[in-house]
Amino acid sequence: MVESGGDGNAVVDRAALRDFYDEYFACLEQQDLEAWPAFFTEDARYLVQSIENQRCGLPIGDVFCDGAAMIRDRATALRSTSVYEPRQLRHFAGTLRLTGREPDGAIRCELGYLAVETIAGEAPVLFSAGRSIDEIVTDAGRLRFRRRTVVYDHGYIRNSLIFPL
Amino acid sequence: MVESGGDGNAVVDRAALRDFYDEYFACLEQQDLEAWPAFFTEDARYLVQSIENQRCGLPIGDVFCDGAAMIRDRATALRSTSVYEPRQLRHFAGTLRLTGREPDGAIRCELGYLAVETIAGEAPVLFSAGRSIDEIVTDAGRLRFRRRTVVYDHGYIRNSLIFPL
Amino acid sequence: MVESGGDGNAVVDRAALRDFYDEYFACLEQQDLEAWPAFFTEDARYLVQSIENQRCGLPIGDVFCDGAAMIRDRATALRSTSVYEPRQLRHFAGTLRLTGREPDGAIRCELGYLAVETIAGEAPVLFSAGRSIDEIVTDAGRLRFRRRTVVYDHGYIRNSLIFPL
Repeated sequence: MVESGGDGNAVVDRAALRDFYDEYFACLEQQDLEAWPAFFTEDARYLVQSIENQRCGLPIGDVFCDGAAMIRDRATALRSTSVYEPRQLRHFAGTLRLTGREPDGAIRCELGYLAVETIAGEAPVLFSAGRSIDEIVTDAGRLRFRRRTVVYDHGYIRNSLIFPL
Repeated sequence: MVESGGDGNAVVDRAALRDFYDEYFACLEQQDLEAWPAFFTEDARYLVQSIENQRCGLPIGDVFCDGAAMIRDRATALRSTSVYEPRQLRHFAGTLRLTGREPDGAIRCELGYLAVETIAGEAPVLFSAGRSIDEIVTDAGRLRFRRRTVVYDHGYIRNSLIFPL
Repeated sequence: MVESGGDGNAVVDRAALRDFYDEYFACLEQQDLEAWPAFFTEDARYLVQSIENQRCGLPIGDVFCDGAAMIRDRATALRSTSVYEPRQLRHFAGTLRLTGREPDGAIRCELGYLAVETIAGEAPVLFSAGRSIDEIVTDAGRLRFRRRTVVYDHGYIRNSLIFPL
């Protein structure tokens, strides 16, 4: 249930958060790169990094986008210029932890995930496992990420990160 | 929540759909082949095929059942005549997308899935990943598949498809 | 929803059970061994065993704790004396089956699971797949396991079972 709270932010329960992540992962699975940036606010920061870097507090990652323009640019680049083998990803949501609220009402939460990748003609593999550390706000009538940091548990990304996580 | 709609079809929310898939997968995990056909309507069509065939619009699949009689026949054949190593499957539901309604009120939806198989004495493996494209109706007081097409992302099924998906 | 029933036990729906498992798995993923014993009642029995042993009705398992004192001891031993490579586990809940009620109102249920393990610097692997057979009660205002039997589908645990399941 998403209800408008007094501070303009939503009263969001676990089911609504899970539905939001479900829509986000469905967008990625359909490789709908045009719809992907709309899951972020204009001032969003998006980062994908290893757990080692995250634990050391290092800002380095495989992908870093500071603001929606960079996120849209990433989507466009992927659609227009990248060359890669056809593949299909499937995302599985794991544990959901609500870790707090920002002073302005934004939700802080973490979600465990598993991403299974199948390169065309090959067998499915465990592509990535880890968790995301997210800040979610109600923005223009829907939930969006204001901050999304995907922290994978392994040392590096197998092959390369083509589609976002 | 499953409520009776004016057209005899149910008002079904995401949670009710997830519960329905949960029951379906639990039936498969228990290898309860006698209970499996009851998840389908009498006029149901059940197909398992690769994403390549599905994208090309080809009707070919590993399993095709046209009607409940063929579905029951499949279950009986598996119980009575098939010889295979003991195995255990575990199913994990991924993204759920409600894609529309048929004119008669049937729900069209897609569910990402992961099936993990353990042959007795061996390590668990990723048996299959993909999505199902389903049509679900309320029939004799419960949800049932009127159409279920399981589309796996990989080129072929590892070993062979013993139990249905 | 968790409501107080007439017998002092809770009226618990599927969503509340899933939230409980979510909290339990989140505790394990954070390797919060100090918080782990609080998921069990004082008289709880905790067992991890293979499906072969479970089917034969054998009491033998990789871990057996009879009572909360043994559970706390296990947590302390793991924290204080065990030597193991750093690793991260991710848990994914599968099918949930409510299988009945004990005469005193305790819930009997089974949950399919997948545990993915990543040893530091390595790729993620399927660590364990199976189901748990649980008895859950409302105890001092929250849900707790009175009995938890984790039955893995494979013949043995890869490497060794460091963290509980």
